[in-house]
Amino acid sequence: MTYQAPVDDIMQALKTAAGLDGLIGSGVLEGVDEDTIRAVIEEAGKFGSEVLDPLSAPGDRAGSKLVNGRVVTPDGWKEAYKQFADGGWGALAASEEWGGQNLPQIVATAAGEIWNASNLAFGLCPLLTFGAIDAIEAQGSEELKRTYLPKMVTGAWTGTMNLTEPHAGSDLGALKTRAEKQADGSYRIFGTKIFITYGDHEMTDNIIHLVLARLPDAPPGTRGISLFLVPKYLVNKDGSPGVRNDVVCAGVEHKLGIHASPTCVMKYGEKDGAVGWLVGEENRGLNVMFIMMNAARLAVGTQGVSVAERATQRAVAYAKERRQGRTASSRGGEMGPIIEHADIRRTLMTMKALTQAARAICLVTAKETDVARRAKDPAERAAAANRVALLTPVAKAFSTDIGCEVASMGVQVHGGMGFIEETGAAQIYRDARILPIYEGTNGIQALDLVTRKLPLDGGQVVADYIVELTKTVHEVRASNRPEFGRMGERLGEAVVALAEASRWMGGALQKNPDAAMAGATPYLRLFGLAAGGVYLARGALAAARGGGQAQPIAIARFFAENIASAAPGLKETVVGGADSTLMLAPEALSA
Amino acid sequence: MTYQAPVDDIMQALKTAAGLDGLIGSGVLEGVDEDTIRAVIEEAGKFGSEVLDPLSAPGDRAGSKLVNGRVVTPDGWKEAYKQFADGGWGALAASEEWGGQNLPQIVATAAGEIWNASNLAFGLCPLLTFGAIDAIEAQGSEELKRTYLPKMVTGAWTGTMNLTEPHAGSDLGALKTRAEKQADGSYRIFGTKIFITYGDHEMTDNIIHLVLARLPDAPPGTRGISLFLVPKYLVNKDGSPGVRNDVVCAGVEHKLGIHASPTCVMKYGEKDGAVGWLVGEENRGLNVMFIMMNAARLAVGTQGVSVAERATQRAVAYAKERRQGRTASSRGGEMGPIIEHADIRRTLMTMKALTQAARAICLVTAKETDVARRAKDPAERAAAANRVALLTPVAKAFSTDIGCEVASMGVQVHGGMGFIEETGAAQIYRDARILPIYEGTNGIQALDLVTRKLPLDGGQVVADYIVELTKTVHEVRASNRPEFGRMGERLGEAVVALAEASRWMGGALQKNPDAAMAGATPYLRLFGLAAGGVYLARGALAAARGGGQAQPIAIARFFAENIASAAPGLKETVVGGADSTLMLAPEALSA
Repeated sequence: MTYQAPVDDIMQALKTAAGLDGLIGSGVLEGVDEDTIRAVIEEAGKFGSEVLDPLSAPGDRAGSKLVNGRVVTPDGWKEAYKQFADGGWGALAASEEWGGQNLPQIVATAAGEIWNASNLAFGLCPLLTFGAIDAIEAQGSEELKRTYLPKMVTGAWTGTMNLTEPHAGSDLGALKTRAEKQADGSYRIFGTKIFITYGDHEMTDNIIHLVLARLPDAPPGTRGISLFLVPKYLVNKDGSPGVRNDVVCAGVEHKLGIHASPTCVMKYGEKDGAVGWLVGEENRGLNVMFIMMNAARLAVGTQGVSVAERATQRAVAYAKERRQGRTASSRGGEMGPIIEHADIRRTLMTMKALTQAARAICLVTAKETDVARRAKDPAERAAAANRVALLTPVAKAFSTDIGCEVASMGVQVHGGMGFIEETGAAQIYRDARILPIYEGTNGIQALDLVTRKLPLDGGQVVADYIVELTKTVHEVRASNRPEFGRMGERLGEAVVALAEASRWMGGALQKNPDAAMAGATPYLRLFGLAAGGVYLARGALAAARGGGQAQPIAIARFFAENIASAAPGLKETVVGGADSTLMLAPEALSA
Repeated sequence: MTYQAPVDDIMQALKTAAGLDGLIGSGVLEGVDEDTIRAVIEEAGKFGSEVLDPLSAPGDRAGSKLVNGRVVTPDGWKEAYKQFADGGWGALAASEEWGGQNLPQIVATAAGEIWNASNLAFGLCPLLTFGAIDAIEAQGSEELKRTYLPKMVTGAWTGTMNLTEPHAGSDLGALKTRAEKQADGSYRIFGTKIFITYGDHEMTDNIIHLVLARLPDAPPGTRGISLFLVPKYLVNKDGSPGVRNDVVCAGVEHKLGIHASPTCVMKYGEKDGAVGWLVGEENRGLNVMFIMMNAARLAVGTQGVSVAERATQRAVAYAKERRQGRTASSRGGEMGPIIEHADIRRTLMTMKALTQAARAICLVTAKETDVARRAKDPAERAAAANRVALLTPVAKAFSTDIGCEVASMGVQVHGGMGFIEETGAAQIYRDARILPIYEGTNGIQALDLVTRKLPLDGGQVVADYIVELTKTVHEVRASNRPEFGRMGERLGEAVVALAEASRWMGGALQKNPDAAMAGATPYLRLFGLAAGGVYLARGALAAARGGGQAQPIAIARFFAENIASAAPGLKETVVGGADSTLMLAPEALSA
């Protein structure tokens, strides 16, 4: 089956969870209205269904390969990329100054969900390019911007992020790639980077690498890292690609999934050194990275929504077709479609509810990004920036965790056929597994949430957020609608659990940071359940007010009664589980 | 790293959770003592580490393939199989009458865990052969037994189970393969079977297929299915393999995992019909299947323990080696091993605790199997048989679910390297995914537990079981040991949650079976958490009495405080979640 962009679901999440009307009314979107947003999302959906989706399975089978030193992407990849760039999709959220369309982040996030759901391995290429554009725009010199951004924004050239080295993954402070300053102000880069997504390919006539490296006199650790722009081909005065730079792809990894996305080992400076230019200030490279980090993490969280949506669509379609056993609609001993079995209905409801909850969290984070960038009032911008900081690790980790879970349920709904590669469910399961790992493992996200985000503004940022969630709980309770069942009760318990766990974390961070860190992962899950449940409830409230669309109410109530019901137990784990987590010394654990 | 059989952990589970001393004392094991059991398990471990484990990764890369109509297994497979048979491993639990060693099921289950942890794709071949032996021994004619069992018990020939057809998976009543009776008392079989594990290979000079088929005059549905024995080569009077039967492998599936295990499409009767003999009575084939089903489901549950143990060993080893970030042992700004980070410790504790809980559930089920087969008192045998019936779906589904979860955590601990195939973590993740599907999907297990097992003996079987769990909870509470933390409290809540959910299920089965079925999957999970938590607590109690081994206490307490803490929430889901699960009509779900 062909993936169909869930345009109505996305619009509903924007309107109810993310408060689109208020956003438009406040002028933050600078004249972009609901119709425009829907139109762009629908077009993105067409492109995804018609161009990207048909390449997903063949791309998985063929994979990208290193052949005689050249990275060969699967058949059709180059043409699809050209259509992507020609369609202006590379430029959605980029600044008009460099040829972009200056559309809000909510639109870019929605479109990103769709491309990545259509074809995750393809979607990674623009995802990384957007990150590189952000970094150059934020901190590059005027000359770097003028030389590179117009080409990157139009998609004529792609971008990469070169952070990881064999001994420096989560801990970038350990990286060893070195940079030497030249008399002309440029630098020469020497070192090996691994896990470089689309590190090489021939879809475009240049590739712009952003590379973290260390100057000879740099302080050790993370305070001695600088960021450099290193083009694959040095750019001529007229802007055209010129001589080949001293950077090569030395290998393409054989991976569990996203086979079509070339994950490259990149060697810089095997001859005279790769020519690069400093982006931002010397030794402040990580600061530039931090600027982009929220955007990139939100983009990866959105990929979690993508795989979940793709898996759900396929599972629902299969469950409608596949007949096994007697069901309500069976006649004369015939088998009915498995979608009518109660246990399959639970699975499909779980898939839908988790997907929609994660989507809402990602779109709310995107909305706060828009407010943080575009609101006129500096206080409003600052508050939204804090909200983005708070929600980003949740958007990244919760969404990618549920992406894997939903993909696994998708395999299960297919039964034995799910384990056969030709069905496609297995590919989603394999592809999804990278998402909790890259762009900061989900463990790192949980630590970021607990150790950096909870203390923001003395804890006021999370406290304000919980107050906002509580308001929705009160609305649900006050509405007193029988069709809401125990939604208000369960969500109330979930938000109270989040509040109590947050309070406990505040104390633990002072007295026993190891205990706080031991509870970080279940705390993040609890956060996602409370937030996701509340956002879905907003959809249910709107549906009830609007005359009672059944699906938003059922999904929200299901989430509260069947998924958010885990919240009090997670709180117990957070506040009472640290001692036993840390009881065995690491040496004893490994015995 | 090479897999090492967790002999001490297995012995501890046998002695504490499964009450090995009492079992030996009661004479059920017919003279087999603890030293013998340990010796067999240690030998199985050597065979696993030295012979099977080295073939696992190369077998995954090569896969089994259909080449010119012949199934070619990976290099080394045939030799390893010969060593397996020569070592007498095929005959552990089989009857002495046919050349077996008549060892108890607890030993066979422990050895099965080890072989499958060493090499899951290999372990499947004996697993299926054991099932075929059981069926023939239980219901075959004397002639069938004499002709086939000695060869199968020694491993000279392997066996297969042919149930599934393209349109008959979970619903075997729909199968279409037909059997025609011949004048000489034999039958001719015509039809296509799919998903036949080791349906063809050349490791042995014959393969004995057990095939479900339908006689021309058979009643429709499950009451018209008969079981036939169909050898690949017809057996000569002297017992040697003779002419080729009319059965061929028409294809080998391209699967997500267990690549080395050939999953075959088998065509019976493309010429004159495959020659077969009836096993048991006509139209009673499913009854024979049911005889074997408990054993086969326990064996698959044990495979869940296998993949979890393998994943855990690799994750612990990697976490000791890999250095990132500062830890307690870091000196002078150097990076410490990631096993010292609190969040990684939580992950590894979770992996260990889930693995050990699932192992305990499987070994207790094996122990009850031994009592059901060997106890002198018929009442004791009957009670144990009921206990086996109750626990089997939990052993199968809980263990294979956590197998997938732990394998996923194993990938995560490896970070980016976990997504690269050469590391091996990804293979475990791929291989594990079949386990919740085959031998009855885990959804089917949950329905079996709720609709067939809870009503056993008017609900008394589950009620007695909960009483037994409660006794351990009281012991934990009475022990009043500070190092147990809140283990007693959390386990008490878990067992109460199980009791309440069971009571609710009893009522729902009468009044609203769909609601009961809608809660079956979370109910089974709750059952596994309560049972697993109690079994680990027995290990902790024994350790405390014995002077305080740290690991069993820490693992049990961790499980109670961090994993079983989900039990009350699961109960809420079971008793309060059915309405919202079934709120949307299936048609609305698929919109």
